[in-house]
Amino acid sequence: MKNVLLTVAYDGSGFSGWQIQEKKDQRTVQGELEKALMRLTGQTVRVLASGRTDAGVHALAQPVQFSDGSTIPVEAFVPALNSALPQDVRVMGARQVPEEFHVIRDAVAKTYLYRIRLSADPDPFTRNFCWQYPYPVNFRALEKSATLLEGTHDFRAFCASGSSARNFVRTIYRLSLEPADRMLEIRVRGNGFLYNMVRIIVGTLMMAGQGRLEPERITEALETGRRDLLGPTAPPRGLYLQEVEYPEQCLNQDRNLPE
Amino acid sequence: MKNVLLTVAYDGSGFSGWQIQEKKDQRTVQGELEKALMRLTGQTVRVLASGRTDAGVHALAQPVQFSDGSTIPVEAFVPALNSALPQDVRVMGARQVPEEFHVIRDAVAKTYLYRIRLSADPDPFTRNFCWQYPYPVNFRALEKSATLLEGTHDFRAFCASGSSARNFVRTIYRLSLEPADRMLEIRVRGNGFLYNMVRIIVGTLMMAGQGRLEPERITEALETGRRDLLGPTAPPRGLYLQEVEYPEQCLNQDRNLPE
Repeated sequence: MKNVLLTVAYDGSGFSGWQIQEKKDQRTVQGELEKALMRLTGQTVRVLASGRTDAGVHALAQPVQFSDGSTIPVEAFVPALNSALPQDVRVMGARQVPEEFHVIRDAVAKTYLYRIRLSADPDPFTRNFCWQYPYPVNFRALEKSATLLEGTHDFRAFCASGSSARNFVRTIYRLSLEPADRMLEIRVRGNGFLYNMVRIIVGTLMMAGQGRLEPERITEALETGRRDLLGPTAPPRGLYLQEVEYPEQCLNQDRNLPE
Repeated sequence: MKNVLLTVAYDGSGFSGWQIQEKKDQRTVQGELEKALMRLTGQTVRVLASGRTDAGVHALAQPVQFSDGSTIPVEAFVPALNSALPQDVRVMGARQVPEEFHVIRDAVAKTYLYRIRLSADPDPFTRNFCWQYPYPVNFRALEKSATLLEGTHDFRAFCASGSSARNFVRTIYRLSLEPADRMLEIRVRGNGFLYNMVRIIVGTLMMAGQGRLEPERITEALETGRRDLLGPTAPPRGLYLQEVEYPEQCLNQDRNLPE
């Protein structure tokens, strides 16, 4: 069996999220990938992603792992899967990884992108791909709030209820704001994220940018864990899983096999 | 009755084109607008566009005319229609125009935009919004071919069969090529366009850019009317109706009404 790692991009707007749902009629990215692999290999294949994404959330590069018992060369999975998959899921790369590699456990950093359209004008083309935000935004307040979130904190206030997490301490290495034309791109790189954490961060930052939330409330929420001090959960359509990082030694095949 | 002119933008990817189809289950932009107007005014309203667009073709600013017998102020149509319409059709503006104004007859120039993604990498996000073109392109050849098409010509070679046109002479005021990053934007401004004319122009330009069609064949096609000398019809998903121009005096309400 080969341990294969795919890099998958998808437009989340037509999916009920990554994970296969009990209701069979819901389209999921996992479901589409498993169907395509079944068609190519003739075998039932389970795929595992670095993390689930909710309905409407996109991925620029989602790492996806599966065990392959077929004779298909690894390089052939990219064109073969892209022929078998619907157009809103694309395989960007495929490589063989060591038997011990684990797509969730071995991840050391993740980067999410959140896109906001700062405009009151309607636009039918970006509706599934960003959060349209029609209010004036103070960048100074945005940046001040972003700085408060960088570093290691107990982020339980930034976690949606219903999460199974027990440890809420996470480290945000970088939270950057990149305004461009009428778009604002927010990038968050961290060692891991709680359920809805990025969307609550974005909802909170924008409320601070609008002047309706004092940055001090963010500090208080980090100290007390109170979700009610923060802003709303930003909508899924602006969120993109951009990158998941692994240590080189986890990805490289061990060539020192016994002779 | 008020003569009302709307400016409408739509993402064409979810529509069987502008025009209401005989098959009732096909989504059309005209159908959605008429449904929304019926809901707002309680009356059966027919809307007329400056030109039909095919399935998958987009509009940044499609002028749409209708006769309004309601008491709704013209300014109120923008927010009211946008509340009643699906998210892939947006009304950008509404104004009252003179009784004699006619959205098709009075148009003096139209501009279409065609977007091409010059890349072999797959991308699930742009699939409905541009033509993905994975081949190397020679810009010198593209520009030479574009120049040949500017001006007044008999464009019958650039017209899809099945068109009801009798006069094939049109004037292209400007055909511009704007490369940006991995995108190529082609803009065509002219006094009018035959059925599929822009898409045949784009298919022909790209074939010339790829070095598979000598620019001389374009000259020959203009002289002979032979469609077979030209390139393929580019796919609808890259095409956007960008602007339709009217003389100011057609748009302005005559204020010299009898006292």
